Amino acid sequence: MSAARTDTEDVELANTAFYEAVERGDFEAVADLWLDERYGGVSCVHPGWPVLSGRGEVLRSYALIMANTEYIQFFLTDVKVAVAADTAVVTCTENILSGGPAEDGAELGPLVGQLVVATNVFRRTPDGWKVWSHHGSPVLAESDDEDEDAEGAV
Amino acid sequence: MSAARTDTEDVELANTAFYEAVERGDFEAVADLWLDERYGGVSCVHPGWPVLSGRGEVLRSYALIMANTEYIQFFLTDVKVAVAADTAVVTCTENILSGGPAEDGAELGPLVGQLVVATNVFRRTPDGWKVWSHHGSPVLAESDDEDEDAEGAV
Repeated sequence: MSAARTDTEDVELANTAFYEAVERGDFEAVADLWLDERYGGVSCVHPGWPVLSGRGEVLRSYALIMANTEYIQFFLTDVKVAVAADTAVVTCTENILSGGPAEDGAELGPLVGQLVVATNVFRRTPDGWKVWSHHGSPVLAESDDEDEDAEGAV
Repeated sequence: MSAARTDTEDVELANTAFYEAVERGDFEAVADLWLDERYGGVSCVHPGWPVLSGRGEVLRSYALIMANTEYIQFFLTDVKVAVAADTAVVTCTENILSGGPAEDGAELGPLVGQLVVATNVFRRTPDGWKVWSHHGSPVLAESDDEDEDAEGAV
């Protein structure tokens, strides 16, 4: 009998569940975690991709990614949650290890490491917190010289 | 005496004002458009950057970018607004033309074009809609072959 969880804890659990569903390649779970269209339009940006809008476009992208991903694991760090009434913004760093389908009889394709940062917006619904917007982007440079990072990028 | 604007129109105006403030290099206007800390923690991801959290870190990044940007113009396309109660998610494509400070006596540094997609989350406050979260990321590939885009990217 644990104490009631706070909104922040519930949102963080939903955020974790979202990545675990992708790790498992569980399309139904991913679809269930994205906000139902009746609550408003969803949007999704995968690293380097243009914006995808609406459940149809977003879920098709996950089906496509899952078909091309044999193995994927997310090590989430720097998870920050900000809740305001029925909406929450989560930012986190996705330390990704992934591999495509095997080639030439190998058990698994080559593994690739990726550093991605994400902003995930959640909405509270009667069925729990659901993903309203996901935006992931590659971290292109880590430099101590902030001046270099800043040039021309907004 | 125009008819009252809808929430969607108000949010789109706030989104436009945000980019115009950056175009003008108007730091005070940019600071005014970011959500006040008392309403919750803000977050910001510039293209290729890690996550910045809190007004201090976010506003310092704008000061730094403005100091390194002599000229910047945003041509916004594909602007989509989703409003739910006191929160709104805007996605748009930022077609950016920018230039750094002049070198070697030139009037302006070399101009660079950039294709960036953004997810901007706004909150309704007594002072209007304010930016709660901004996430911009480079569009790295535009390919008709969706399979190629999908590999390993989530």
